[in-house]
Amino acid sequence: MDIRNAKIYGKSVIGKNVVLGDGVIIGYPAANILKDAANSGLEIKDMDFKGAVIGDNAVIRSHTTIYSNVTAGDNLRTGHNVLIREETCIGNDVLIGTNTILDGRTVVGNHVSIQGNVYIPLNVFIEDNVFIGPCAVLSNDKYPIRAKSDLKGPILRRGASVGANATLLPGVEVGEGAMVAAGALVTKDVPPWKLAIGFPARFEELPEHLRTLNNI
Amino acid sequence: MDIRNAKIYGKSVIGKNVVLGDGVIIGYPAANILKDAANSGLEIKDMDFKGAVIGDNAVIRSHTTIYSNVTAGDNLRTGHNVLIREETCIGNDVLIGTNTILDGRTVVGNHVSIQGNVYIPLNVFIEDNVFIGPCAVLSNDKYPIRAKSDLKGPILRRGASVGANATLLPGVEVGEGAMVAAGALVTKDVPPWKLAIGFPARFEELPEHLRTLNNI
Amino acid sequence: MDIRNAKIYGKSVIGKNVVLGDGVIIGYPAANILKDAANSGLEIKDMDFKGAVIGDNAVIRSHTTIYSNVTAGDNLRTGHNVLIREETCIGNDVLIGTNTILDGRTVVGNHVSIQGNVYIPLNVFIEDNVFIGPCAVLSNDKYPIRAKSDLKGPILRRGASVGANATLLPGVEVGEGAMVAAGALVTKDVPPWKLAIGFPARFEELPEHLRTLNNI
Repeated sequence: MDIRNAKIYGKSVIGKNVVLGDGVIIGYPAANILKDAANSGLEIKDMDFKGAVIGDNAVIRSHTTIYSNVTAGDNLRTGHNVLIREETCIGNDVLIGTNTILDGRTVVGNHVSIQGNVYIPLNVFIEDNVFIGPCAVLSNDKYPIRAKSDLKGPILRRGASVGANATLLPGVEVGEGAMVAAGALVTKDVPPWKLAIGFPARFEELPEHLRTLNNI
Repeated sequence: MDIRNAKIYGKSVIGKNVVLGDGVIIGYPAANILKDAANSGLEIKDMDFKGAVIGDNAVIRSHTTIYSNVTAGDNLRTGHNVLIREETCIGNDVLIGTNTILDGRTVVGNHVSIQGNVYIPLNVFIEDNVFIGPCAVLSNDKYPIRAKSDLKGPILRRGASVGANATLLPGVEVGEGAMVAAGALVTKDVPPWKLAIGFPARFEELPEHLRTLNNI
Repeated sequence: MDIRNAKIYGKSVIGKNVVLGDGVIIGYPAANILKDAANSGLEIKDMDFKGAVIGDNAVIRSHTTIYSNVTAGDNLRTGHNVLIREETCIGNDVLIGTNTILDGRTVVGNHVSIQGNVYIPLNVFIEDNVFIGPCAVLSNDKYPIRAKSDLKGPILRRGASVGANATLLPGVEVGEGAMVAAGALVTKDVPPWKLAIGFPARFEELPEHLRTLNNI
């Protein structure tokens, strides 16, 4: 175990057999606590607030920041420079790649693999056995800032896959076992076990050999 | 205020009531000064050069690097791992999201919101009340390296919006109040208060309820 | 030379006249060594394993991590937060931009320029004088996880160029001197000295003045 070069804030709970890389931050406080610190002259490490909960056997690589009010199960593995913001709840056996951002208030199931450079906004729902390829972009705001919005992110059902550099519009649902092709722009719900391909994406039949659950 | 875990280089000036997260670097020297340091045996912290200027009430989150010769107004908020390079001038009330890169020589107005994973090259001009969605990519070089170029970046006029994962070609102007849809490839100037959508983007009328200034 | 704020692990070899920024990590151990550390109670810095080899005159900017079993020639310059994973072999005079990920087992030739936010998966082959624009995404797995794959990444031949936010499907070859336009989705091999443009990309003649080698 090597957690000496990490910073652990608030009342964080770290499981057994965990590796925290250089510059890792666990339990980073949300904006209101940061402002309190600035106003009070207190340092964050001396303040009392809820931290993060990280399960057993985690490997959290260098310069990754996990906010306060995040819960992760066992066997979490992250790349470097990952950001996981507050009110995110992560299951067991999850991988989150380098530079990926989870912007908070998101549920991630078990056996999920999220590759590098992925952007996941507020209010996303990711079920078990989902795969998200590198540089995929999920969104939650149809007319950002311009018009009122309830910030509804995509829903990725059990065993769904999203290809590299694909873009998902706010609130779309990718059905169980469905696949989104690389670079596709998904503008409406993808039915279960279909392939979404193109810009904007149309739906095609999924070849027989791909009608199987992601084995993550 | 908690700036103890940050590094401040050169003659940087930091405003009042500022929070600098762990590993933040302010006033990072440009390449020529780094090379001077390597050649002279001096450490960067012992060298004399112009730093950055950061206004009051800034919150600069962990592992963000702001170069020398950057000026920011009041109320700057950044995410984590942000990079802001030299000769960037930022107004008041600006938000810059996690992992976003401003590659230098860029002007950013007031009340601007730039989300996470955005790439902004050299020589971009961003007016007030602009919104740039996550993973948007601006470019400044039509035939990179292959042919001579004056590296002209896009111009985003007052209140323009750019959607998630959109790509803007070099030198395009997005007119006042115009919106670029998610994933769109913008190859020519977008007229004011129009919607640019598709690949490459065509222009459509903006619905009535979106003909209003971004309220940032 | 200023390498005091960097961490150097394993038996790494660092050339002359090198600048390592704050929080840089050289020789970061692969997952099996990390797990050994967790199990043995040893700290990584006290463990014995092969490190990285970095040539002369390198400038490695802050929070960049280079894994064990990486070899780089002379004059490597990286941006900030770059990740270069194990079994990557890099030539001389290479630039790798901020936030770019090289996920390992990749060959990079001489005089190569890779801009910021680029994703390069396992098993990519990049020849001399290649240019890769910002936010370009290379992939290596046609049906990620769903079906068996040999993880074959793209091949970029001598002097090829890839535009901003372009997506390259697994195993495609971009021929000598060919150019991929910004945002293009490359689904099949691009012949030498052609332009790949669109979604999916079609091939066009390259204008006469662009039939010249990238001068990097």
